[in-house]
Amino acid sequence: MNDVALDGLSAFPLTPLSEDRFDEGAFRANVRRLAAAPVDSITALGSTGSYAYLSREERRAVVSAAVAEAGDIPVFAGIGGLRTSHVQQYAEDAQAAGAAAVLLAPMTYQALTDDDVHGLYADVDAELSVPLIVYDNPGTTHVTFSDDLYARIATLRNVASIKIPGVPADPVSARARIDRLRSILPSGVTIGVSGDASGAAGLNAGCDAWYSVIAGTLPDHPARITAAAHAGDAERASALSREWQGLWTLFAAHGSLRVTAAIAEQLGWASRSCLPRPILGLGDEDRERVAGVLRTLGIDGRAR
Amino acid sequence: MNDVALDGLSAFPLTPLSEDRFDEGAFRANVRRLAAAPVDSITALGSTGSYAYLSREERRAVVSAAVAEAGDIPVFAGIGGLRTSHVQQYAEDAQAAGAAAVLLAPMTYQALTDDDVHGLYADVDAELSVPLIVYDNPGTTHVTFSDDLYARIATLRNVASIKIPGVPADPVSARARIDRLRSILPSGVTIGVSGDASGAAGLNAGCDAWYSVIAGTLPDHPARITAAAHAGDAERASALSREWQGLWTLFAAHGSLRVTAAIAEQLGWASRSCLPRPILGLGDEDRERVAGVLRTLGIDGRAR
Repeated sequence: MNDVALDGLSAFPLTPLSEDRFDEGAFRANVRRLAAAPVDSITALGSTGSYAYLSREERRAVVSAAVAEAGDIPVFAGIGGLRTSHVQQYAEDAQAAGAAAVLLAPMTYQALTDDDVHGLYADVDAELSVPLIVYDNPGTTHVTFSDDLYARIATLRNVASIKIPGVPADPVSARARIDRLRSILPSGVTIGVSGDASGAAGLNAGCDAWYSVIAGTLPDHPARITAAAHAGDAERASALSREWQGLWTLFAAHGSLRVTAAIAEQLGWASRSCLPRPILGLGDEDRERVAGVLRTLGIDGRAR
Repeated sequence: MNDVALDGLSAFPLTPLSEDRFDEGAFRANVRRLAAAPVDSITALGSTGSYAYLSREERRAVVSAAVAEAGDIPVFAGIGGLRTSHVQQYAEDAQAAGAAAVLLAPMTYQALTDDDVHGLYADVDAELSVPLIVYDNPGTTHVTFSDDLYARIATLRNVASIKIPGVPADPVSARARIDRLRSILPSGVTIGVSGDASGAAGLNAGCDAWYSVIAGTLPDHPARITAAAHAGDAERASALSREWQGLWTLFAAHGSLRVTAAIAEQLGWASRSCLPRPILGLGDEDRERVAGVLRTLGIDGRAR
């Protein structure tokens, strides 16, 4: 395993499509914005990057473009797929394209047993030469990780981080949850929070990383939240997060993907309908609400 | 739309793999057994046929092999995928390979809205020239079809049948459910039951078709059940189904796919571990239970 730091703010960019093709120009421009912010890492092909919908060739192009534009910022790459042998191909491609780590969610069609999920990670781990981030995203995978399953998988050679779906809202419970996870994970395996509304709470509770959807499109405010939390100023991190409550409310109503895509489209950073069909994206009324929140937050796509 | 009859017993064969490759010889031999049974149709690339795990090339090979071996029995083909444009490619390939109808489940990674699901069917329907079977399989797709959504989709030009996930156990409730569905569907759209334990109950309640997992591997007993039900002998259909309660119990415990794969492997009709990894299939103890049920039912892979 190499020495990539799996902590801080990891930004998950969209993979915008245009007429059902990868909009490489829009993607590259976005990665340049993320690298300039800067963020601590860029995770291409997360759920927000629509990895599940993309062909092997498209995924290769996305990772290559991210690495080309990211400069010194490490690029992580999602490698999920329904079939183990496909995941292994994606892993090989991502490493060849320069990914510094890979991120794997256990996609399902048929429900998987714990042994199936462990076997997937073991098979993929065995052929990796970069760190592996375990991606626990029950809303999309319908897999429930028990703590036992986390612990089993975390002993695999390359597992270096776990992306958890969120933390309890109450700070004491959140801290207890992260302490509990630490106690079952090998030392050195980082814990990253996801669910952007929980970002500040997760960092304040001791998470090492924030795997963030919104930072993949609007990185500056999440970077301020991360800096405050890592400086030990939990109050300020929470206050900054509350400033974006309007966005978190939209995320809760429509999912972060559709809202973030609408933001990118609104700001002119992606063409209309940038998500893969059958996902139609937000309707006009909801887009108006998104535009209203952006105005309230003073975000016009130029200002930082 | 052409005149394929979407009723009777449709058998869903496994797509056996061997060392992660399509085991075409095993598949062809199985399709020949189904055609000899005979069944009323063969649905290749159902969930049981692992369509979600297969590449475009593999899917093409599966449909071509099924058509080549099915003789006069019509072959239907699953065309599901996460991205609309991929589904459209699979539909094109299936038709070119000779599929008499196509079967579409709304696979999900990101949850889909009703408008997304309707849009998927509309986009695919617009380019089809064979009948379309709507495949409602909530256990794998995590999509819940409302009756309103059924009704909207059923008005599309090529929609000819709906594969429902099951019927209530109580015969009166089952009949009421099918009557209700008939009242909201255009006349001529057939209703097919799935969930093999509900096969007899569904046919007795007025379903036109039984879309059957087990008939794709062991067609004779399901064919007898179907004949009894269609002859109006509900008692006999139910009694025949009860004879196989041992199997239905295994299906409930492990899912029909893993049990059916274990049966095929047990009978020498597929090589060990014929399912796509990460699905490991049943463990040894459960395989013993499957073998015991097969012995009880007098199934040894030679007798019909």
